[in-house]
Amino acid sequence: MSSRDQLEVFPNPREDREFTIEHVHPEFTSMCPKTGQPDFGEVTLRYTPGAVCVELKSLKLYLNAYRNEGIYYEAVTNQILDDLVAVLQPRRMTVVTRWRPRGGLHSVITAEYAVAS
Amino acid sequence: MSSRDQLEVFPNPREDREFTIEHVHPEFTSMCPKTGQPDFGEVTLRYTPGAVCVELKSLKLYLNAYRNEGIYYEAVTNQILDDLVAVLQPRRMTVVTRWRPRGGLHSVITAEYAVAS
Amino acid sequence: MSSRDQLEVFPNPREDREFTIEHVHPEFTSMCPKTGQPDFGEVTLRYTPGAVCVELKSLKLYLNAYRNEGIYYEAVTNQILDDLVAVLQPRRMTVVTRWRPRGGLHSVITAEYAVAS
Amino acid sequence: MSSRDQLEVFPNPREDREFTIEHVHPEFTSMCPKTGQPDFGEVTLRYTPGAVCVELKSLKLYLNAYRNEGIYYEAVTNQILDDLVAVLQPRRMTVVTRWRPRGGLHSVITAEYAVAS
Amino acid sequence: MSSRDQLEVFPNPREDREFTIEHVHPEFTSMCPKTGQPDFGEVTLRYTPGAVCVELKSLKLYLNAYRNEGIYYEAVTNQILDDLVAVLQPRRMTVVTRWRPRGGLHSVITAEYAVAS
Amino acid sequence: MSSRDQLEVFPNPREDREFTIEHVHPEFTSMCPKTGQPDFGEVTLRYTPGAVCVELKSLKLYLNAYRNEGIYYEAVTNQILDDLVAVLQPRRMTVVTRWRPRGGLHSVITAEYAVAS
Amino acid sequence: MSSRDQLEVFPNPREDREFTIEHVHPEFTSMCPKTGQPDFGEVTLRYTPGAVCVELKSLKLYLNAYRNEGIYYEAVTNQILDDLVAVLQPRRMTVVTRWRPRGGLHSVITAEYAVAS
Amino acid sequence: MSSRDQLEVFPNPREDREFTIEHVHPEFTSMCPKTGQPDFGEVTLRYTPGAVCVELKSLKLYLNAYRNEGIYYEAVTNQILDDLVAVLQPRRMTVVTRWRPRGGLHSVITAEYAVAS
Amino acid sequence: MSSRDQLEVFPNPREDREFTIEHVHPEFTSMCPKTGQPDFGEVTLRYTPGAVCVELKSLKLYLNAYRNEGIYYEAVTNQILDDLVAVLQPRRMTVVTRWRPRGGLHSVITAEYAVAS
Amino acid sequence: MSSRDQLEVFPNPREDREFTIEHVHPEFTSMCPKTGQPDFGEVTLRYTPGAVCVELKSLKLYLNAYRNEGIYYEAVTNQILDDLVAVLQPRRMTVVTRWRPRGGLHSVITAEYAVAS
Repeated sequence: MSSRDQLEVFPNPREDREFTIEHVHPEFTSMCPKTGQPDFGEVTLRYTPGAVCVELKSLKLYLNAYRNEGIYYEAVTNQILDDLVAVLQPRRMTVVTRWRPRGGLHSVITAEYAVAS
Repeated sequence: MSSRDQLEVFPNPREDREFTIEHVHPEFTSMCPKTGQPDFGEVTLRYTPGAVCVELKSLKLYLNAYRNEGIYYEAVTNQILDDLVAVLQPRRMTVVTRWRPRGGLHSVITAEYAVAS
Repeated sequence: MSSRDQLEVFPNPREDREFTIEHVHPEFTSMCPKTGQPDFGEVTLRYTPGAVCVELKSLKLYLNAYRNEGIYYEAVTNQILDDLVAVLQPRRMTVVTRWRPRGGLHSVITAEYAVAS
Repeated sequence: MSSRDQLEVFPNPREDREFTIEHVHPEFTSMCPKTGQPDFGEVTLRYTPGAVCVELKSLKLYLNAYRNEGIYYEAVTNQILDDLVAVLQPRRMTVVTRWRPRGGLHSVITAEYAVAS
Repeated sequence: MSSRDQLEVFPNPREDREFTIEHVHPEFTSMCPKTGQPDFGEVTLRYTPGAVCVELKSLKLYLNAYRNEGIYYEAVTNQILDDLVAVLQPRRMTVVTRWRPRGGLHSVITAEYAVAS
Repeated sequence: MSSRDQLEVFPNPREDREFTIEHVHPEFTSMCPKTGQPDFGEVTLRYTPGAVCVELKSLKLYLNAYRNEGIYYEAVTNQILDDLVAVLQPRRMTVVTRWRPRGGLHSVITAEYAVAS
Repeated sequence: MSSRDQLEVFPNPREDREFTIEHVHPEFTSMCPKTGQPDFGEVTLRYTPGAVCVELKSLKLYLNAYRNEGIYYEAVTNQILDDLVAVLQPRRMTVVTRWRPRGGLHSVITAEYAVAS
Repeated sequence: MSSRDQLEVFPNPREDREFTIEHVHPEFTSMCPKTGQPDFGEVTLRYTPGAVCVELKSLKLYLNAYRNEGIYYEAVTNQILDDLVAVLQPRRMTVVTRWRPRGGLHSVITAEYAVAS
Repeated sequence: MSSRDQLEVFPNPREDREFTIEHVHPEFTSMCPKTGQPDFGEVTLRYTPGAVCVELKSLKLYLNAYRNEGIYYEAVTNQILDDLVAVLQPRRMTVVTRWRPRGGLHSVITAEYAVAS
Repeated sequence: MSSRDQLEVFPNPREDREFTIEHVHPEFTSMCPKTGQPDFGEVTLRYTPGAVCVELKSLKLYLNAYRNEGIYYEAVTNQILDDLVAVLQPRRMTVVTRWRPRGGLHSVITAEYAVAS
């Protein structure tokens, strides 16, 4: 279960201008629910803020909270997007997860959100 | 002959959202039907899932089954796409194969599928 | 507080032609207002000049003036854009700041300006 | 004079689907007609096949036949495109030649063909 | 003052087909009019020829003639474009200059020309 | 506390010849005892076997067991070396740990063992 | 079981001079005896010839013969060295095998031979 | 003037074994005493500890204290070495500083210390 | 047969000092005597001159003369060394040839000469 | 003729300790005496100072003074070494020049000086 409550925000300093914020966390780790072994990956968050921006340290703690949680690639990518959209209500947001090889294959999952126009 | 039956699937955890899954297998090998010598390449699968996603280990076993099969670059690329489309019924799918040099030339084959709109 | 007055300009040598100027400053440093520790980054400025271009040495001195100023990533990126737009009145301008990792995360902020058409 | 007759073809295994084939030959050499010295480059062929595909070994022999021929960059690029279009009748085709430096300058020539729609 | 007269041309071997020619000169040097010190950069010329192409050696000599000339980044980029457009009358042309760092900043200037349609 | 008991061995297939085995684990993680935050690094083990070699999967499980253990860079490097020397009794062994940046600094620790001659 | 008989030799063209020959085969594959899954690696052979050199195509066929053989990293490295030493009787020889990651770890095995002096 | 007092130490966990510790700080900045402009560089510290090791955060604060100090490349490199040798009394120590280009030249200064044997 | 006579020399400007000259020719091509197909490689010449140095353009013409000659990797490497030693009488000389892949394998041949001491 | 007089020095701040200073100038240009065309290269100076160090800006001006001088690779490398040894009287010094390709070949010249022991 995710820890959406850990995410803290601060007011967008230029809410009148559309601009883009990207945070890359190359130290993401969770557990494979099938094998019980750890997975390692890099999480990229890119968004156009609405009224608030995510505070960097709270984002790190939120992502670190997956450390001992069993969850699949596809599920964790969508979960991170859902949590951040709920808390930040951004204009647009993309989450990309890039995973280290398992059984010789490496994977990249990309999920996007945009306010309906 | 391909081994489409080896492919296993699991339900798309967010069928309501279009998102993208990419798996890269840098350890693909098959046999050249003309020379009887092995070919080596990297297979990239990128798709927007419909109701199901492909299970990673079964994808690996499916691709490994070409190991001793004689098949040309162009044919194997289209065959992988046909098998995965049949089993996954994705919204969109691309298969790219990149081959190590033969006779000094190296090749890349790209085939795509999309649900007719 | 920023030092917009340091920026010097020279006449655009070809105001009749739209062309693009990019300056990259990989030696940007400011202070984190929260921790009091220095931040390090690279600032990229890309613009289509109007009547004037920015003089390179004055741009460097302007950027160096943030050295001991406490300011957040999002704020400094927008501040640099505002100052340069005010002084240069360009046709289009983009400011990108890329930051070295803090707590394992690295960030990129992008802000753009264009004359309304 | 080019050796278009050396090119062999095989039937497109999936003529009903548009897909892309790319072959890269990094070992191309011809002669400079002006200096009599050898030129060295890399030839990339990218095409969407029609009824036939080019056989890889015959493509190599065709390209190797320029080895002792005096011909300029611009001419050889267009000649290769003309020969391959004549023999393959593809839907689309691009030829790119990238040349090693001469007098400190290096060059890239790109020529394209598409069936008129 | 530039040496447009040094540029020599030869007839476009395929004037009926639009194709692209790119020449990269990584050994460009001129003088800074302000400091009197040398500047170093790389000049890229990309164009779709009209009736004529530029002869490679004359292009090199034309670019080398800036060696001891004092001229700013923005001016030299536009000057090269003007000279080549005047002599070649191309369908489209782009000149990009990339400069080695001065005072820690490095710059890229891009200017384009196209026949009005 | 380390889990030396997890390490499994198999007989050296060529004990009469000195040869070298290197295993690199780029997915190592432990906890910082001071901050309670996770550390991430890459562990390289290089050794000349004596009577036995380490089994690869047991090595992975041994290294994964540090996942939630609080331990400093210098201590964990020496601990891994001690455990592997105790179990394998190699002729020579080196352990290198390379750590991702913390506070802008990144570190490398190297410890070696050799049978006294 | 290895296929030492496939190796062919030709006379050293300069037996009076010590020189070095290196062949790199990046397309090596064998089977893991434990999991039954394929392993992929790169084999480097470096040697100072005695009376004979190894013929390149026969070396390739010899290495390809491991394709469906179950054998461990450490064993196959020593086996290749033993076979080549037996057939070539070189002055010195090194075999290095570099393996793609398995379970997140990647390995390098190095074995050497030299005539006793 | 340097701030040697900021350096904190902790006991070497394995004083009986010679091992190596390397810390790299890519975010070093000081002031040029001649021009008054900032210099930027990367400081590498490599040492074999004696009775104590340097605490990482105090090392960072020590290096950050040069931020507004005017000092030459050669002097700062020797100063850092002197301070760390005085506080740590290591068996061996090397300090390397790598500087970003000034006037087109970039510099590397290396200073070493070893206990007299 | 090689064209040793094409090599021209000029007097060593500092015969009293031992220094090193390296020339790299990445555009070497010869013919495989077995298949009749072209081979491509890079030739590196490194030497300490005696009384004379090799003139660069004549070295290029000498190497280009192998273009249509059938010769094996091992033989051509030793032949180049023999010719250059005969003409230059250097104090020390090394010739390295690095070849593009054939049948998936790529090769490097190294031959050295030194005046007996 | 070289301009040794332009070189300025400052006192070695730690003459009692042997340390190493390296300056790299990637923007060196001179003229080929044979063709009259410019040559471009990178000059690396590495030395252990005696009583004095070379001042960076004067080194740059000294190297820039070769801009319009006709001189061969081998001669200029030895000339720079001679001038710097005469002015600095270092304990050890190495000059390396790396040249951009001419006629497809690129060259590296290395000359060293050491106080006789």
